Amino acid sequence: MDINAVNALPYEDFVNIFGNVVEKCPIITASVWSRRPFVSLPALEAAISEFIDSLPESGKEGILRCHPDLAGRDLQRGTLTLESREEQARAGLDSLNSAEASRMTRLNEEYKERFGFPFVICARMNDKANILRQLSERCQNERAVERARGIEEVKKICRLRLQGLVLTDAPNKL
Amino acid sequence: MDINAVNALPYEDFVNIFGNVVEKCPIITASVWSRRPFVSLPALEAAISEFIDSLPESGKEGILRCHPDLAGRDLQRGTLTLESREEQARAGLDSLNSAEASRMTRLNEEYKERFGFPFVICARMNDKANILRQLSERCQNERAVERARGIEEVKKICRLRLQGLVLTDAPNKL
Repeated sequence: MDINAVNALPYEDFVNIFGNVVEKCPIITASVWSRRPFVSLPALEAAISEFIDSLPESGKEGILRCHPDLAGRDLQRGTLTLESREEQARAGLDSLNSAEASRMTRLNEEYKERFGFPFVICARMNDKANILRQLSERCQNERAVERARGIEEVKKICRLRLQGLVLTDAPNKL
Repeated sequence: MDINAVNALPYEDFVNIFGNVVEKCPIITASVWSRRPFVSLPALEAAISEFIDSLPESGKEGILRCHPDLAGRDLQRGTLTLESREEQARAGLDSLNSAEASRMTRLNEEYKERFGFPFVICARMNDKANILRQLSERCQNERAVERARGIEEVKKICRLRLQGLVLTDAPNKL
C-alpha cells in the first residue's frame, strides 16, 4: 500500500487498518486522520508521535495503562490483541520456563506497584533475557523517567506496526 | 459500588470496568486514574470531561471517529460494543422499517461526507424519530459547531454509562 492509497482512505477504513498501531488507542489514529494527506509513511508516524507528545502527562500514563503485561494474564488467557500476541511470541515470552515466568510476574507486579502503569518495551527489538534484564533495571528508575521511557517504546512499537501494515501489501485488511 | 470502592481499584480493574464510558477510548479512563481519589461520581465525570476538553481539536474529532454509525454496519453485523448495542436497541434503532433505515443510511453518509466524523447523539435520551430529525437538522451545521455538539453528546453518553456502572451493583464486572 503506498502513501497515496493511505491518504485516500475514508476515516473508517483508516481506523480499521491502523487503529491499533498504538495498543488499544484507536483515538490516536482517528485523530491524525485530520492531518492527512501525509507525504510519506514517516510523516504519518511523525503525526502520531506529535499527537502523543501533545497529551498531558496523565494522557501518556493512560497510553501505557492500555498496554498488557508482558507474559501476563492476557497472554495466558488468550485475550491479547493480535499484534501483541505476535510480538510477545516472537520474543519468546509465550515459552518461558517456570523460573522465568515467576520472575517476570514478580517484576511486573513490582513495576506496576511502583509506577502505577505497566512496563512497556518493544518486544520485537528484544529477546526474553534482555526483556527480563531491562525490566529489573528499569524498576529502579524515577517515575517521570519511566513514563518518558515507556512512551519511547510505544513509539518504537508503533513504527514497526505501521511498517508491517504499509510496507507489506495487506489487501485483506481493507 | 461507592466512590471509595472506585478509588481503591488498581488501574487494571478501573480500566476493565470503566474503559468504555467513552466509546472505544480506554485511554481516557486510563488517564484519569492518575487523578484519583475522586470525592464523588460527579468528580470522576468532571475529570473525564476535563481530559476531553484538554485534547486538541483533532483529538476531539478522533473521539467522534471512534463511534459507530447509528443503525449502521456494526449494528447489522453484530460488532457493536455491548454498551452501544443496548443504547441503540433502546432507542428503537434495531427495528427501523425499510424507509427509516434507508433514510438513516443516506443521512449518516451525508453527515460523514460533510464533516469527516460520524453523527453522535445520546441514543438513550432520544427515540428513533427524534434521532432522524436531529440528524437531518445537524447536517446543516458548520463543522466546528458539530464537533462541539458531538462532544457534548459524548459527555452525556459517558454520564449515563458511568451511572449505570457505579449506581447499580455490578460485582460480576469486577
